Amino acid sequence: MGLHADCWYGECMSTVDVARTSSRPSADVRGITILGATGSIGASTLDLIKRDPGRYRVESISARRNAAALGKIAREVGARHAVVADHAAYRELKDALSGSRIEAASGEDALVEAAQRPADWVMAAISGSVGLKPTLAAVERGATVALANKECLVCAGGLFMRRAATTGATVLPVDSEHNAVFQALGAGNRADVKRAILTASGGPFRTWSKEAIKAATPEQALRHPNWVMGPKVTIDSATLMNKGLEIIEAHHLFSLKPEEIDVLVHPQSVVHGLVEFRDGSVVAQLGSPDMRIPIAHCLAWPERIDGPAARLDLAQARELTFEDPDITRFPALGLARRAM
Amino acid sequence: MGLHADCWYGECMSTVDVARTSSRPSADVRGITILGATGSIGASTLDLIKRDPGRYRVESISARRNAAALGKIAREVGARHAVVADHAAYRELKDALSGSRIEAASGEDALVEAAQRPADWVMAAISGSVGLKPTLAAVERGATVALANKECLVCAGGLFMRRAATTGATVLPVDSEHNAVFQALGAGNRADVKRAILTASGGPFRTWSKEAIKAATPEQALRHPNWVMGPKVTIDSATLMNKGLEIIEAHHLFSLKPEEIDVLVHPQSVVHGLVEFRDGSVVAQLGSPDMRIPIAHCLAWPERIDGPAARLDLAQARELTFEDPDITRFPALGLARRAM
Repeated sequence: MGLHADCWYGECMSTVDVARTSSRPSADVRGITILGATGSIGASTLDLIKRDPGRYRVESISARRNAAALGKIAREVGARHAVVADHAAYRELKDALSGSRIEAASGEDALVEAAQRPADWVMAAISGSVGLKPTLAAVERGATVALANKECLVCAGGLFMRRAATTGATVLPVDSEHNAVFQALGAGNRADVKRAILTASGGPFRTWSKEAIKAATPEQALRHPNWVMGPKVTIDSATLMNKGLEIIEAHHLFSLKPEEIDVLVHPQSVVHGLVEFRDGSVVAQLGSPDMRIPIAHCLAWPERIDGPAARLDLAQARELTFEDPDITRFPALGLARRAM
Repeated sequence: MGLHADCWYGECMSTVDVARTSSRPSADVRGITILGATGSIGASTLDLIKRDPGRYRVESISARRNAAALGKIAREVGARHAVVADHAAYRELKDALSGSRIEAASGEDALVEAAQRPADWVMAAISGSVGLKPTLAAVERGATVALANKECLVCAGGLFMRRAATTGATVLPVDSEHNAVFQALGAGNRADVKRAILTASGGPFRTWSKEAIKAATPEQALRHPNWVMGPKVTIDSATLMNKGLEIIEAHHLFSLKPEEIDVLVHPQSVVHGLVEFRDGSVVAQLGSPDMRIPIAHCLAWPERIDGPAARLDLAQARELTFEDPDITRFPALGLARRAM
């Protein structure tokens, strides 16, 4: 017992403390805060919560400025607190919540307060660097943080993970690739990992020439072949810049050296990430391209809950293909490595 | 900590005790016995041991009747005890070991004695039902048993796993498919498993018509597309009878109901087995088709050792394909399910 548990604890997740959630009995009601409730990750999280509402108590939710949508969600899930980042939207939020007992607030300090309120589990899905302070606030009080915000790791990964280690916060990766690597790491000890492999769909320009990519329009870049995501990450996927950022994220999340993180182009987006162990075994996580799968994993971890995503049928998928990324046509990968 | 460790221990491996090996410090010399040392599994095991001889002490090795080969191996690895199952080969073994201090023995009782001698780890690679008694003898003394013999599970799985649970023996699956499922189970708790999927190359007759299969010669059946194995398992692979037996093995090893075990035809033999969890995540183990990968996993478990197998390069593999098995052309799968 001792050795395996220690390895898992001490090595796989060297900078993350699993102790807090582990002692939670499964029947408990889980306090939930969703920072970024009106975006696509927020919507997927809410979809899961609404399927089993007795399991969760929603403490706080936030949005940038869509007060109407946020007010509607707050009433639906019975949130205690709702925040719009933009002060200009406060009045509208207040109106949307009138007659309810839901507190309304606005501004960046209110986002930090939302993260500080008592919730076992915080979805950090605010996009951009504005997400950094509230996410760090959740880490500072030792919460379990489902991390969808990239900037926490790309801009401040060293600090962020050190603080998590100090406070005992649990950081669970929401990105499908990092969540896949996190799941695959369960098959062994951190010391036996040779490398992690993040897959990339290759985006809409995978087969385009360098010249054609140069002439591409934003509309063309926004046509992602597999995933429905926000516009920034979709554009970044077209250039593989997103994958470059993901290498940096993996480096911080799993304490992997840059040369221990590889990228593999896999147009079908079925295999999300892989871990190669020193004995030659490669363990991978697969699934339909539906963010509710990694989010459900974070929401229930270390247990699992039933998921609504389409069941993966490999016989129907028929074929999965793989190729090395072309650094000439997609220089962003090299740039990210240099930045690291 | 507590919960996760308990889940892993109590649920993933419900009928298997992991306590014994877990407390072994990694620097210890491991006592090894190889039942079936001259077959292909035995040869792969010996290959791994010879790469790091200081890590192992070979207690006993056995063969059916190839006394010359067994004597040579015994000297090479410094075994203490060598057994031929066939009494007629005893004289030759005795001669092959003359001048050494290696004990020679023969017969079925000597095989049982070999399994009873003090070795932490026993490779059970005797093929056929003659392997049952010695493997059970290793289980009875609570050893860690790397199980390559199918008959222990197919003929006596209930008894075998019950005895392992009672004595505290650890049963580690050597078959690439079951070893893959075992590795994938590490990504979650047993209670969250929806089904296990065993892959099948489809054998040499995968694309043949029913009539052509009927007229096939033994030579044609022996031409396995991916794996180099013994003749019985190769013939059984051509009819998918082997996969049928593997369903029965998985049922006993992992306490899965027949309907929780699926078979997927995957001609490239890169993905060896998969586990689907209730949240929609599918975790798989992949690797080159080299039995030294699952054997290395068993040999070092719960740690891992460096493996000599070719590193899996998915970009070079380019494409992996999957199809449902055709029960009409390969009725053995249905027969196995009915037998179960």
